[in-house]
Amino acid sequence: MGDPLHQRIAAELRRRIAANELPIGAALPSESQLCEQFGASRAPVRQALATLRAEGLIGGGQGRPPVVRSTAAGQPFETLLSFSRWAEDLGRTPGQRTIEIARRAASPEAAEALSVPEGEPVLELLRLRLLDGTPVMVERTTFVWPVGRLLSGHDCDAGSIHAFLTARGVDLARARHVIDAVGADPVDADLLDLPPGTPLLRERRHTTSAAGEPIEYSDDRYRPDAVSFTIDNSQRARPALLRTRGQVS
Amino acid sequence: MGDPLHQRIAAELRRRIAANELPIGAALPSESQLCEQFGASRAPVRQALATLRAEGLIGGGQGRPPVVRSTAAGQPFETLLSFSRWAEDLGRTPGQRTIEIARRAASPEAAEALSVPEGEPVLELLRLRLLDGTPVMVERTTFVWPVGRLLSGHDCDAGSIHAFLTARGVDLARARHVIDAVGADPVDADLLDLPPGTPLLRERRHTTSAAGEPIEYSDDRYRPDAVSFTIDNSQRARPALLRTRGQVS
Repeated sequence: MGDPLHQRIAAELRRRIAANELPIGAALPSESQLCEQFGASRAPVRQALATLRAEGLIGGGQGRPPVVRSTAAGQPFETLLSFSRWAEDLGRTPGQRTIEIARRAASPEAAEALSVPEGEPVLELLRLRLLDGTPVMVERTTFVWPVGRLLSGHDCDAGSIHAFLTARGVDLARARHVIDAVGADPVDADLLDLPPGTPLLRERRHTTSAAGEPIEYSDDRYRPDAVSFTIDNSQRARPALLRTRGQVS
Repeated sequence: MGDPLHQRIAAELRRRIAANELPIGAALPSESQLCEQFGASRAPVRQALATLRAEGLIGGGQGRPPVVRSTAAGQPFETLLSFSRWAEDLGRTPGQRTIEIARRAASPEAAEALSVPEGEPVLELLRLRLLDGTPVMVERTTFVWPVGRLLSGHDCDAGSIHAFLTARGVDLARARHVIDAVGADPVDADLLDLPPGTPLLRERRHTTSAAGEPIEYSDDRYRPDAVSFTIDNSQRARPALLRTRGQVS
């Protein structure tokens, strides 16, 4: 992959921590051991460790090898918003297949979510999202027209739409995610290759500008064996939120 | 209800904000209007407003009527942990029916979750949880034996177990919640009066002491039309987390 080495080192260490190969309290390998393991010089190893420290995953240091402090850093806003970014942070390969992109009149649900009059034009996008080539999520996103029109000539299979929009100055600043469960409808079932009615983990997301203007509304349905949400909280610390790989019992 | 007046006023204002009857930016009624609406004196009204301000739901003030700032305060740790506390904060009535309480050998899943050897004794509790008298959740909780034994003589239908344990010095300090979806098994289906396979919102929770010692592991399955989880996040602010009333599309 084209990712810088320090990002790949950080992703691999995150994976080891998340997989409990490096449990809480465990010392990380020393810098020289990490250099050897990754065939890397000191600079990218140190940059990777700094990233994990910033995320609260590791502590200690100052000469001694750093120690695992938390198995769960809170994910940054962009990582929770963008499936592509999330997959890349995990060191996996995101993918997408655009099933439909349409300019149409807002449905009652989208109209309410986006605070536009019913029947107003919106851009609707139906995509199948993949993780390492495997279908894991059906994404139904509706954009207000002034934003959606930016996507009209865009190849939605090319990568992160959120990154594309952000680069065009769209202010994706705040999001509300409502998480529940829903049975696969015929479209979900077909795209995810599951029997209709299979329980899916649903995330409905409203994204607005910093000023609260609606930008997008999305109904994302995940295979629960592939993706779950994890919340770490305590009496003292702020909650940490993660979209995580599925944990099937 | 036996709740103090200021708590009831705060719960009602929270409800109006959550229901968008008081949207973001809207001014709250003045103190005298609130006194009139609730048949209350100034003291409980002011206490309720202070609570909402502490939760980040309202801002402004200083002579002028306070203004709605967020529709979602982060819920305190106890509220996310305890179903009873959560329902009470919402101004609803929590309920429970104990189906089974058993001392038995830890299952492989519970043993792993609680870091006890397989076959070690644990306390297992199966309860149906109700909101305003309606069954909404099936709770399967496993306690490590030193904690579970405290519940042996306890009437688990009497109210919040977490409150009972906290009062006995049990240090419920940290929790990890993994949220996904699962089909109702025969027990869930029977207790919730739903067809088997109905999609349920599942929360699996590990609760530990501040030092990280496992205390309980719970598998809670909610009717998604009754309960969902909501996350508000932004580029700037810390995420706010809420267990919310279900929002069915």
